[in-house]
Amino acid sequence: MKERMKPLLSIEKMKSLSVEAKASILAMTTLAGSGHPGGSMSSLDLLMALYHFADIDPKDPLKQDRDRVIVSHGHISPAVYSVLALRGYFNLYDAILQFRLVGSPFEGHVAIEVPGVEWATGNLGQGLSAACGFALESKLKSINNRIYCLMGDGEQQKGQLGEARRFAIKYGLNNITAIVDLNRLQICGNISEVMPQNIKANYESDGWGVLQINGHDYDEIIDALNKAQQIDAPVMILAKTIMGKSVSFMENKEKYHGAALNDEELIFAFRELGVELSEIEYKNNGAMHREKRQSIKEQKSFTKFEIEPPPLDLDFQVNKDKIYDKSIDNRSAWGDAIADIARLNLGSKENLAVFDCDLMGSVKTADFQKVLPSHFFQAGIMEHHTAVCAGALSKYGFQTFFAGFGMFALTEVYNQLRLNDINKTNLKVILTHVGLDVGEDGNTHHCIDYIGLVNNLFGFKLIVPADANQTYKAINYMVNQKGNYLLAMGRSKLDIIKNDNDEVFFDKNYEFEYGKADIICEGNDGSLFVTGSLNGTALKVVKKLKNEGINLSLINIPTPLQIDENVIIKACKTGIIFTLEDHNVKTGLGSLISQKIVEVLTSQKIKPNDVKPVHRFGIENYALSGSSADLYKSMQLDVDSIVERIRNSEFGVRN
Amino acid sequence: MKERMKPLLSIEKMKSLSVEAKASILAMTTLAGSGHPGGSMSSLDLLMALYHFADIDPKDPLKQDRDRVIVSHGHISPAVYSVLALRGYFNLYDAILQFRLVGSPFEGHVAIEVPGVEWATGNLGQGLSAACGFALESKLKSINNRIYCLMGDGEQQKGQLGEARRFAIKYGLNNITAIVDLNRLQICGNISEVMPQNIKANYESDGWGVLQINGHDYDEIIDALNKAQQIDAPVMILAKTIMGKSVSFMENKEKYHGAALNDEELIFAFRELGVELSEIEYKNNGAMHREKRQSIKEQKSFTKFEIEPPPLDLDFQVNKDKIYDKSIDNRSAWGDAIADIARLNLGSKENLAVFDCDLMGSVKTADFQKVLPSHFFQAGIMEHHTAVCAGALSKYGFQTFFAGFGMFALTEVYNQLRLNDINKTNLKVILTHVGLDVGEDGNTHHCIDYIGLVNNLFGFKLIVPADANQTYKAINYMVNQKGNYLLAMGRSKLDIIKNDNDEVFFDKNYEFEYGKADIICEGNDGSLFVTGSLNGTALKVVKKLKNEGINLSLINIPTPLQIDENVIIKACKTGIIFTLEDHNVKTGLGSLISQKIVEVLTSQKIKPNDVKPVHRFGIENYALSGSSADLYKSMQLDVDSIVERIRNSEFGVRN
Repeated sequence: MKERMKPLLSIEKMKSLSVEAKASILAMTTLAGSGHPGGSMSSLDLLMALYHFADIDPKDPLKQDRDRVIVSHGHISPAVYSVLALRGYFNLYDAILQFRLVGSPFEGHVAIEVPGVEWATGNLGQGLSAACGFALESKLKSINNRIYCLMGDGEQQKGQLGEARRFAIKYGLNNITAIVDLNRLQICGNISEVMPQNIKANYESDGWGVLQINGHDYDEIIDALNKAQQIDAPVMILAKTIMGKSVSFMENKEKYHGAALNDEELIFAFRELGVELSEIEYKNNGAMHREKRQSIKEQKSFTKFEIEPPPLDLDFQVNKDKIYDKSIDNRSAWGDAIADIARLNLGSKENLAVFDCDLMGSVKTADFQKVLPSHFFQAGIMEHHTAVCAGALSKYGFQTFFAGFGMFALTEVYNQLRLNDINKTNLKVILTHVGLDVGEDGNTHHCIDYIGLVNNLFGFKLIVPADANQTYKAINYMVNQKGNYLLAMGRSKLDIIKNDNDEVFFDKNYEFEYGKADIICEGNDGSLFVTGSLNGTALKVVKKLKNEGINLSLINIPTPLQIDENVIIKACKTGIIFTLEDHNVKTGLGSLISQKIVEVLTSQKIKPNDVKPVHRFGIENYALSGSSADLYKSMQLDVDSIVERIRNSEFGVRN
Repeated sequence: MKERMKPLLSIEKMKSLSVEAKASILAMTTLAGSGHPGGSMSSLDLLMALYHFADIDPKDPLKQDRDRVIVSHGHISPAVYSVLALRGYFNLYDAILQFRLVGSPFEGHVAIEVPGVEWATGNLGQGLSAACGFALESKLKSINNRIYCLMGDGEQQKGQLGEARRFAIKYGLNNITAIVDLNRLQICGNISEVMPQNIKANYESDGWGVLQINGHDYDEIIDALNKAQQIDAPVMILAKTIMGKSVSFMENKEKYHGAALNDEELIFAFRELGVELSEIEYKNNGAMHREKRQSIKEQKSFTKFEIEPPPLDLDFQVNKDKIYDKSIDNRSAWGDAIADIARLNLGSKENLAVFDCDLMGSVKTADFQKVLPSHFFQAGIMEHHTAVCAGALSKYGFQTFFAGFGMFALTEVYNQLRLNDINKTNLKVILTHVGLDVGEDGNTHHCIDYIGLVNNLFGFKLIVPADANQTYKAINYMVNQKGNYLLAMGRSKLDIIKNDNDEVFFDKNYEFEYGKADIICEGNDGSLFVTGSLNGTALKVVKKLKNEGINLSLINIPTPLQIDENVIIKACKTGIIFTLEDHNVKTGLGSLISQKIVEVLTSQKIKPNDVKPVHRFGIENYALSGSSADLYKSMQLDVDSIVERIRNSEFGVRN
């Protein structure tokens, strides 16, 4: 427990700054012609008090033991930028002039490019999960700091908040103080009409402490922030406020949620605020400010901050000699790898974490848990929360893995992963149970869209290993990489890929390299591209065709989002192309190979005559329940069907 | 309120049937070698009582005023199939033999192909939202039935349940009785250890009635089902049960969540159940049953049910004459169209519904609300719930629209839409605010992945209109279509597309046709393909190039997931190809055109020499905040940049 603390400034001084901050909110939204002044005004006093109460340092915005302030309703960025500027993080006038200009860091929703902003938000309901991730970080590092999360009242409707509350209780995150800005208005009107909710009862039902205050009374705010530190549980401060506070014609009007004042209204508002006009003076100088803004835009003379989080402490020791020789599922290889890594680095480097959503046995996280139990988080059936919480923990130094079935840890949480990506996290998403290989659990569980989804996330890399050896090596690789990765595996035991001499293909000398294709065998008649679980099938197909005198190259693509263009050029010059995948045929490997061919043509690396037909073998509709063998057969993806389909292509006819 | 009711059978009779049902659960999972017996046994008595208490009719499984039973934890399918069979819906032995066989309706998670199953589930936490949709249907049709939703206790951790609870309270859905099977075990152990939760307090905090019973005591179950009908609020019955109930070595063992017994264990279990072996006799006949199963599989002699929901009552009157002549946003045209449809059909055909998530002004649903307020649902900031609830309402006869920003109503709820798709709903998702056209709200709000996401959903059709006229016509079209559609629009006002004679292109004679490309103008030097908001830009580009002597065809693709192959063939024969889109360039129009070219080559409709380079102009990374014009410029997607990029292509060089 922390001692009772005083804010950095006197309440009188904060009140006086709040006038300048409010004027700044209005000035920047009016200048930009857009933004969210209403909620910015209601949250302002809370932010002013919080940023002066929290242990933060504008001179060292990323100091390790700082308190963290997460703003979950990211649209109140004008308030956040104004207060951070007045707290010394940057020049206020810069924020006013550059708000929402392309190229400036002062984006419409709070952005991590601005010093003092801990987490970019915009999709509502996710901030508290990020706060949980930061709170875990503090627990793991034994840092006695406090994690604050300011939220809107409307966003309390989002279900993910219940998940975050439960997680915080389970893991004893008594270092979290949440604050809800209860201005009672959301876009479509009063929260009690749009969607009635008993916010206090919701938090209490999950075991949180709740304090109720007037969110414009600095004494009450400071008092509550202190009280929250004395309670041995996560605490939510329910702060009654007024939307548009301090400007009579804005108060309690939902229209100001997302509408800026015009110049005339702004002048009235300034008069009401009694603001000292100084730099944000607007009355006679609106045009001058607009010119300055225009000039910044034209000359691209935007403020640039250098905020580089401390580098990930990597160089994890890995076992380079592990080789599987017998049929085994890739999931087990992942489980072995992460447990081996934990074991090898025990006592020397423990900035590893693994999250699981009630699937420990299936996603093979149990061994890791035994080796490093304090870094294993069992988050129950709460994937939305977990995706964000794990992302936040990965941000500053924990190499964090989130393991789950494809259908849960990706398709349910696509948006959460996208927001992680925008937050430049270092999350490693480990999907087991992708493809028809999932089998009997049926179409609600067949994640056949993982390539198609991840391909939209600019910062994510994707690895789809061919067998247990490649899986183990890929995990060894990933654990020493920063950035976001997703690794996808099926469920079944797979044959170990071997070369023509019956030697293990991904052997001791193999090192995983992102973007490198694996030429499993070479042929002169054409190429078969494959990824993931169907490598074994592909190898059998190629051998069978060889016996018929058809010699195909077999090329494994373990990184479908980055396909080696030289391999494509060579394949085009070799002959007809086939692709095989345990994935939706519209959005997977075959589609990416087709596109790549057109790309190399467009960049004039091949000639039109080199372009070859591409026969795509993959999943063409939702499947049913059944063994994976039966499912493949039903979709004509078994060895015999593929051989037949290749024979029946114009290729077979030509031969 | 319904009167106090008795179940169809005496409690003694139900108890006796429960033994047969339990034996069937174990038999079918052992035969299949997979499945979820533990939860099936704990839920069995609840299901037995419920299916005999509810007003349902195996002879008329879809009778309009039936009670609805939703099973949210779909993995207890063995229990559902056993009880439905004993209730007369189908032959029990068929279910036992065919469970989890590819081609049979008896899938691993409850599937709508089985009569009596109202909603396919598998992803946890979504059933109560579907129940809300069905409950709304009853309210709208003034049907005095009851909607039951049986759920697991582990899945109560999912946040979406809180959203469903709040929605049910707001809309007075006192026709819902939920039941939670409190067996206290989830996959990874006791719920109180995996993720502590006070389920009762959670429901009460949202205003639900809660009854607590012993879930194996038929008197208590029936009594609670009756009591629930007397309470003027949605009610949750918290039913304490025992996982693996009635087989001593299975009871309270989480390992039986997802593991079948082996033959030997099965015989012990039968002995404990004291089951009359009859048809499900196994002791001496295990091999015989396996042979039968194998034979059904080989001969594909699966049970087939003909369950066709009543056809949608369509033929909505639409305004065919509406034409926009001045610049306007597509969203307004959607808002006009849906309000006009409501108005035109008022009093004669009102099976329309619109859902909104606190964005009424932005997504333009306000006019509809004025015309048909009883069919407008303001669901607050609860997209996960809303996507499912709207899907369920669309299933039986309501042409249901769910309007939202792209980033919320699609990227947050991809999985929910996928499950709707599996449920063969008739949902019309209306996305406003897609693309960089969203502008200043920044990258958390730029939905630039809608084509890339929807392309994975086999049953969804996608429409991306070029201007307000095409939007209005597309809504007129959609309102008379069954199935799932998604229509995507930007935010800004757009010029009305006009032809060379300055006449409105999508005029009174234009009728929207799915899959038809729009040849805006023709040229001999090459083709520019475009979709959605950038049509106006594309038209300016083409005009500008024409002045330079470069004549491009301009082709609008309003249905990117179904591109007319003849248009592609013609374009290939014309010349170099350019694509322009306000979308992630990796997964949007350009990628689909590239693939289509390879497809027509592969199907030998063009020759390799016809294949043309494709220059793809789209979004190449997360953008920042800014006006849409500034954003386009920053991504080189403004008129001048595009003209320049086309000039700089090898095409320009050649000319």
